[in-house]
Amino acid sequence: MTGKIRIGVIGASGYTGADLIRLAVRHPAIEITALTANTYAGKPVASVYPHLAPLNLPDMVKNEDVDWSKLDAVFCGLPHATSQELIATLPEHLKIIDMSADFRLRDPAVYEATYGGPHKAMHLQKEAVYGLTEHYRQAVKQARLVACPGCYPTATLLVLLPLVKAGAIDAGDLIIDAKSGVSGAGRSLKQNILFCEAGEGMTPYGVATHRHAPEIEQEIAVVAGKPVLVNFTPHLIPMSRGELVTAYAKLAQSATAADCAAILALAYKNEPFVHMAPQGIFPATQQVRGSNNVMLGAYADRIPGRVILISALDNLVKGSAGQAIQNFNLMFGLPETQGLEQVALFP
Amino acid sequence: MTGKIRIGVIGASGYTGADLIRLAVRHPAIEITALTANTYAGKPVASVYPHLAPLNLPDMVKNEDVDWSKLDAVFCGLPHATSQELIATLPEHLKIIDMSADFRLRDPAVYEATYGGPHKAMHLQKEAVYGLTEHYRQAVKQARLVACPGCYPTATLLVLLPLVKAGAIDAGDLIIDAKSGVSGAGRSLKQNILFCEAGEGMTPYGVATHRHAPEIEQEIAVVAGKPVLVNFTPHLIPMSRGELVTAYAKLAQSATAADCAAILALAYKNEPFVHMAPQGIFPATQQVRGSNNVMLGAYADRIPGRVILISALDNLVKGSAGQAIQNFNLMFGLPETQGLEQVALFP
Amino acid sequence: MTGKIRIGVIGASGYTGADLIRLAVRHPAIEITALTANTYAGKPVASVYPHLAPLNLPDMVKNEDVDWSKLDAVFCGLPHATSQELIATLPEHLKIIDMSADFRLRDPAVYEATYGGPHKAMHLQKEAVYGLTEHYRQAVKQARLVACPGCYPTATLLVLLPLVKAGAIDAGDLIIDAKSGVSGAGRSLKQNILFCEAGEGMTPYGVATHRHAPEIEQEIAVVAGKPVLVNFTPHLIPMSRGELVTAYAKLAQSATAADCAAILALAYKNEPFVHMAPQGIFPATQQVRGSNNVMLGAYADRIPGRVILISALDNLVKGSAGQAIQNFNLMFGLPETQGLEQVALFP
Amino acid sequence: MTGKIRIGVIGASGYTGADLIRLAVRHPAIEITALTANTYAGKPVASVYPHLAPLNLPDMVKNEDVDWSKLDAVFCGLPHATSQELIATLPEHLKIIDMSADFRLRDPAVYEATYGGPHKAMHLQKEAVYGLTEHYRQAVKQARLVACPGCYPTATLLVLLPLVKAGAIDAGDLIIDAKSGVSGAGRSLKQNILFCEAGEGMTPYGVATHRHAPEIEQEIAVVAGKPVLVNFTPHLIPMSRGELVTAYAKLAQSATAADCAAILALAYKNEPFVHMAPQGIFPATQQVRGSNNVMLGAYADRIPGRVILISALDNLVKGSAGQAIQNFNLMFGLPETQGLEQVALFP
Repeated sequence: MTGKIRIGVIGASGYTGADLIRLAVRHPAIEITALTANTYAGKPVASVYPHLAPLNLPDMVKNEDVDWSKLDAVFCGLPHATSQELIATLPEHLKIIDMSADFRLRDPAVYEATYGGPHKAMHLQKEAVYGLTEHYRQAVKQARLVACPGCYPTATLLVLLPLVKAGAIDAGDLIIDAKSGVSGAGRSLKQNILFCEAGEGMTPYGVATHRHAPEIEQEIAVVAGKPVLVNFTPHLIPMSRGELVTAYAKLAQSATAADCAAILALAYKNEPFVHMAPQGIFPATQQVRGSNNVMLGAYADRIPGRVILISALDNLVKGSAGQAIQNFNLMFGLPETQGLEQVALFP
Repeated sequence: MTGKIRIGVIGASGYTGADLIRLAVRHPAIEITALTANTYAGKPVASVYPHLAPLNLPDMVKNEDVDWSKLDAVFCGLPHATSQELIATLPEHLKIIDMSADFRLRDPAVYEATYGGPHKAMHLQKEAVYGLTEHYRQAVKQARLVACPGCYPTATLLVLLPLVKAGAIDAGDLIIDAKSGVSGAGRSLKQNILFCEAGEGMTPYGVATHRHAPEIEQEIAVVAGKPVLVNFTPHLIPMSRGELVTAYAKLAQSATAADCAAILALAYKNEPFVHMAPQGIFPATQQVRGSNNVMLGAYADRIPGRVILISALDNLVKGSAGQAIQNFNLMFGLPETQGLEQVALFP
Repeated sequence: MTGKIRIGVIGASGYTGADLIRLAVRHPAIEITALTANTYAGKPVASVYPHLAPLNLPDMVKNEDVDWSKLDAVFCGLPHATSQELIATLPEHLKIIDMSADFRLRDPAVYEATYGGPHKAMHLQKEAVYGLTEHYRQAVKQARLVACPGCYPTATLLVLLPLVKAGAIDAGDLIIDAKSGVSGAGRSLKQNILFCEAGEGMTPYGVATHRHAPEIEQEIAVVAGKPVLVNFTPHLIPMSRGELVTAYAKLAQSATAADCAAILALAYKNEPFVHMAPQGIFPATQQVRGSNNVMLGAYADRIPGRVILISALDNLVKGSAGQAIQNFNLMFGLPETQGLEQVALFP
Repeated sequence: MTGKIRIGVIGASGYTGADLIRLAVRHPAIEITALTANTYAGKPVASVYPHLAPLNLPDMVKNEDVDWSKLDAVFCGLPHATSQELIATLPEHLKIIDMSADFRLRDPAVYEATYGGPHKAMHLQKEAVYGLTEHYRQAVKQARLVACPGCYPTATLLVLLPLVKAGAIDAGDLIIDAKSGVSGAGRSLKQNILFCEAGEGMTPYGVATHRHAPEIEQEIAVVAGKPVLVNFTPHLIPMSRGELVTAYAKLAQSATAADCAAILALAYKNEPFVHMAPQGIFPATQQVRGSNNVMLGAYADRIPGRVILISALDNLVKGSAGQAIQNFNLMFGLPETQGLEQVALFP
């Protein structure tokens, strides 16, 4: 009996699961009690993640072999469409931080169109809080089930929401050019993420069809007060971690890029993880690798009346496991930054 | 006496010079007669480029030690603002293919504003032909001095010019998000291109201020029939070679993305180096590495009335040395593809 | 009817097959007549290798659908243990260049121990010539079936054989530390070659158990005149192409490192592809990428009486497809360098 | 007044300095009081290291502007040959952890031969303790001046010292093939560490002449009880962080590789940072990136009577800044692991 909060990590063998373990094992209020990974059940974590070998961690087990009554909270890192079924079976006393896409979309029709099938736990969807911490902090504190945003939506919304809310940019003409490291594609075996395919080159993917677009639209619509469609064009970059969003927007009549920078600076003035890039330095993924930090910037375009908005984060940390722990901290009344103080790793 | 065309490469120690040597040494009609590199004068090429060691090449000399009367053509790979002075001193019988930025901008005021000083050889500027081969082929054939386009303008203009010309897209609202490998920054010592700085991360640079924007605007204005300003936002990607442009445009009233694809396909139907990406595959830099090829694609946006245009090339080949040789071939009445048949290197 | 030699590429969908196509399609004496890839039968090459899309190539077919009577030669890029069965069924008129491991080991017991099962075409093994071109040139010229060496054996043997033959080093105490880019592991889906696993890190593999060790031992034994065992320790390096071997040997009594360098220089004096690294520059894979070149060097050790031997090549070219074409040229009486003049691609 | 130990980081603008800041700023007993970087004096750390921008750090100053009386300890990250002069001027009350090479070599003649000039503070050399923590723990606890080992010596000695000490391997025949990420070469501008030069390729360097060889020999001699010469051959690998040593040794008469593994396991049984690689998994730099951990392994060679010894660490952490803090902890009576608990970052 440690007095710590006992957590389970569901789907511990993916990159998101591994990064959650990396952070949770050093979190002073967390005890990692259960790790699940159906295909590796019975094996030590070190067998799939040798970098975790020096740690004292429980062996991986099957989901059905977890004694949920021994846990206080569950982080779920399963692939989309599989989280919902498991989560629906979990006992009520558990707080759940879902890192999958299953509870991010509020509209069942949009969910079905985006993920190719009907949602199987819509009753929980109603309860789920969208875990973009800086914008849903109060709701997260009260939540039992938090749906952590996708990595791209996190990067995008952090830089766009305050500006749309302030009326500084036109929500109806947003171009979002996004670039991600390869870990965003997960650890399952696919040809396009082999070293020789993804290395020394770059490629667009999911042009105009990526599943994160409806999620971005949902949240922009909330602050815009009307439905929106956005351009969203992701690219695969030959690096493991990191995500950079370059968004192009029309300024409202009197607004300037400097206004946008000021609005962002003010919006995140007291935020521990969201920062404006230092003067003269553009946001870059090298600035945030391994940390929960986000770097933002707003710049005048050559085309009058337009602004360029840039956001950089680590897709596995603020884009997933780090934000999950940030939400966990709020849900359990802990200091929001606890366990998330890692400085970015550079070089 | 070989009956071959005797060329000199001015500025042979840069990446552009090295790639020109790579191509020229296997060109059946070329004899490399002189290589200059002032700081390495007297040294063999292998001392700066060991990968060229197995070749039989003349040692590098100073510019002033070249006997220009022994040459038929000169490729100039000097840094911008230094080409113009040298080129102004070259004898009339030489055909000149300039890979620097010095003769790309026709308007002296734009040149001065962009490159920070007055042009020193404006009389030659008038004579210079802009060497975007597919769009200036007839002029290149007659030219004595060809100014090869920048790498970004080449990638950008090839995908945009036919569409602006056809009236399919609005030239007044072009967003050009560009991504380049690190070789685009050259071989001079700068901290941001160290392996540890540029690796495992990505960063925007020259946002809204990059020198290639006025060059793009100049050429779009020609076909649009009016001055234009474009957004142009480059990013540094952790790969050595390759450039990808993702451009976002407003469609003309009745036009569709499929129309754009059809216009591009038609425009380049007989071009040996410009290709539409195969159905279901997006253009990617991996498809063109080391070759003179360009891959294009046009895709419908989620936002109705907008189109996404993508272009990929190797910045050192079609973006520089390869296009230079393509122009050289035309200037000397050789088959346009001669010496440029290298298949892309993948992986 | 082109008058060209009609070839088939068996197993065209692997990296070795792709690189063979890259070279063969520009070979002036070759016509690519058939490409096989059982899982992609009926599809264009561009569907698996978009970088080959601009070429005019036959669609891929199943092995059993090839009309062998229409071919003059076959390059076989199948995985080991599958080549032998197919090759045993091929008509006698075909010359065969096998890039797999199936016919490299002359001793059936060593083959069985190394590849985990009995050889199924030992009668052909007797006929097969080991295709290390520089050391088996005369035999290759007469051969119908050539077994191209593995990439590691090629790099290792080129630097060691002349020295063992000259009695300059002790064949009984050879330490071979080898480093390979990821393409050496092929294109099949394995977790350890995902970008995120192989990137930004390096790992030894197959320590003391790699299948190329017996092949190296076989060939050193030939020139040593007695059986040998060697240390062979490969490492996976975060690059796509390239292989570097650092070998550590004991010098014969009076021999020096300079003697070794001289022996190597003399042995390869007239070889078009094997070069000594320029004075003051160590062999490096950057010097040979995409080319059929090999760079060698010999250096004095700090420990008296020992020498350090270094060899660098491109595992897919001189280590596989390039050497295959080099052998093909000899088998058909063509100039040995035909189709292999590509200069290394750097950067 | 925080009650914390006030430290200065001399040479804060190098990679070693930056990594020390990364670790020190989260160390519960440390207060970073002064940062020096002569060329950046007066500037915020964020101007040279944007990833440190979110932290509250003092601006950089010149060495001569530091009030040493306000400090309790100094970490010195200056280039070799410059540390000694500064350190000789520091007041006696300061504890000094030197990460440069200046106080590693005990024999002035060896120092002079290795670093090209006479030592300028030999009186301090006598006092300096070699900071290979696991092997000099008691001396480090008493030390005022600790000379942290080089990255290569740390990796090499950790795997070799216990075996030489136990008489399991022959100290007179050690082959050390070492591979390092590019950060080991520092942040100063050199052509060979540009992204395009070091990327997608690998190269040996300093073959038989690297400055870390005498340091390794010094420490092996201590446990061997006699002078030794070792082979030491480093290679530059296209990754930012990480170092892997593959050492080849002759076993003592009756010893086996399994014995070696057992000796290492026993020697480091209670060590927090030194681990044997899990069964079936070779040490790899991916396992230790960003952490103070070391992974070791011992494997039977194909050549009877030889053993292969492997060691992996992060050159900037256990190879420099991490080990410096480990020593600092001992010097100040703190728990040895304090501030060093970061889990490795993977992927």
